[in-house]
Amino acid sequence: MLSSGGRKMTVTISHSHHQFLSSSGIPRKRLMNTSLIRCSASPVSNPVLRPELLIRVESQLIPHPKKVDKGGEDAFFVSSYNGGVIAVADGVSGWAEKDVDPAQFSRELMRKASSLVDDEEVNYDPRILVRKAHAATSSTGSATVIVSMLDNNGILKVANVGDCGLRVIRKGQLIFSTFPQEHYFDCPYQLSSEAVSQTYLDATVTSIDSMKGDIIVMGSDGLFDNVFDHEIVSTIAEHKDVVQTAKALANLAYKHSVDFYFDSPYSIEARNRGLDVPWWKKALGQKLTGGKMDDITVIVGEVVSN
Amino acid sequence: MLSSGGRKMTVTISHSHHQFLSSSGIPRKRLMNTSLIRCSASPVSNPVLRPELLIRVESQLIPHPKKVDKGGEDAFFVSSYNGGVIAVADGVSGWAEKDVDPAQFSRELMRKASSLVDDEEVNYDPRILVRKAHAATSSTGSATVIVSMLDNNGILKVANVGDCGLRVIRKGQLIFSTFPQEHYFDCPYQLSSEAVSQTYLDATVTSIDSMKGDIIVMGSDGLFDNVFDHEIVSTIAEHKDVVQTAKALANLAYKHSVDFYFDSPYSIEARNRGLDVPWWKKALGQKLTGGKMDDITVIVGEVVSN
Repeated sequence: MLSSGGRKMTVTISHSHHQFLSSSGIPRKRLMNTSLIRCSASPVSNPVLRPELLIRVESQLIPHPKKVDKGGEDAFFVSSYNGGVIAVADGVSGWAEKDVDPAQFSRELMRKASSLVDDEEVNYDPRILVRKAHAATSSTGSATVIVSMLDNNGILKVANVGDCGLRVIRKGQLIFSTFPQEHYFDCPYQLSSEAVSQTYLDATVTSIDSMKGDIIVMGSDGLFDNVFDHEIVSTIAEHKDVVQTAKALANLAYKHSVDFYFDSPYSIEARNRGLDVPWWKKALGQKLTGGKMDDITVIVGEVVSN
Repeated sequence: MLSSGGRKMTVTISHSHHQFLSSSGIPRKRLMNTSLIRCSASPVSNPVLRPELLIRVESQLIPHPKKVDKGGEDAFFVSSYNGGVIAVADGVSGWAEKDVDPAQFSRELMRKASSLVDDEEVNYDPRILVRKAHAATSSTGSATVIVSMLDNNGILKVANVGDCGLRVIRKGQLIFSTFPQEHYFDCPYQLSSEAVSQTYLDATVTSIDSMKGDIIVMGSDGLFDNVFDHEIVSTIAEHKDVVQTAKALANLAYKHSVDFYFDSPYSIEARNRGLDVPWWKKALGQKLTGGKMDDITVIVGEVVSN
């Protein structure tokens, strides 16, 4: 398929084949991955289809303030396979009540996914990668997950189960977004060790023809529950560098998450669902506000062609 | 590509090859198209790829209150070609200041697009359809445009230039949305008779793997500037029938558009861009509110497989 500008493009990440980045043992606000990833043409039958491309990826993970010691329950990986693969999983915290570490499932899911990106059956299809990674995961627990894969034609394919998310910003405007899927408020679709969970068939599968200069923002709900889309757009405009942008977004999400008075996307959504402060507080003019304390994963990528 | 549920599906509309519906001479609130479209298998090499499908499409067009006599400046068409094609164009009203009827360009663009859907070069690609229809249009003027095509694998492909829009609702949840592109507030990207305009290369091209039961809502900004996404979702939940849903959405958009006190998506966006009432009204606690009087085009489709 024709990508924008009549160019067909593929991003390949040359510095490593798979780069698995678990959130294990990460201190608060630690930088997970700061790298300028040089993407060069790979040997293919038609070199015109694979011009030289440069992708800059920056990722940040800030664990929940009460989960700093264990590094939180988010996990993610970045792979150089083909046009590049990025995935985020968010372990469902409710498992702690059953004495199960919620991080185990999300971390194993990401490990298995990272080892399956070059599986023949996956064949650039993020939904099949979700299916195979889920089937290969044996830990008890559950997680939301999002997987994006950039194919040889510059098409970014996305499979999403639950409330992790992805945004694409082009020329200062939001042009693409995933949407959270949930059973009810705060109960997202999730892959699980239990038979009753969602499967790859429940994934929303979307795609966008990417262009040089597109900024891709991926993250867990810890980002999107605390930062509005217009703030993501303005943060990108203010920084213009993925390293600084990812840091700024993670810091902004953290700042909002611990602010009891910030009227966050999460608190607005909660009020829209009928949740609010008790009537006597309402009578005093108060309303339900505040960010959502959570693990915060932010991955920012920029597509650049040479 | 695998569609949801492991099924590969194609929607074909059997009752007519092309159904061109211009907005010319339409009285206010007139029903444009109420039809149960029977979609049956077409002769293909692999019949498994084309199970029987039923698609119900309903469309409504309510012209701007001051443009009722001429039928407004929106135009659209629905075609049965292949998996089905739906397109909406919104003539840019500023041309009236140059004594050019803004409806001419949008109507010719839709006429040309409807005659080109089976063009070999288009080959299911809505961006190429936009390119060829634009090139074939000779009227003076400009328009925003959105084109969606459902292909043989159940993938809904969308090309969008400007501020028409499309939403997909699955199981009561918004799962896909286009986003408006603009130069600045109230100046959308647009195809034009002038050389300085946008082209098909400026289209945002996205896609979603559709599923049986998906509700597709397409329209001009007259819908999306006046009706929130959560209202679209709740309207669908309340009606469950595309005929009633399209009527309800068009009526809701019209009601909001003429309500000076409704805090519409348009007025919220205007305030976000720094527009507001004069300071002395602000001092009295007033703010910029109200819907946006405009032509309102609403097309609602439901994917059903037999």
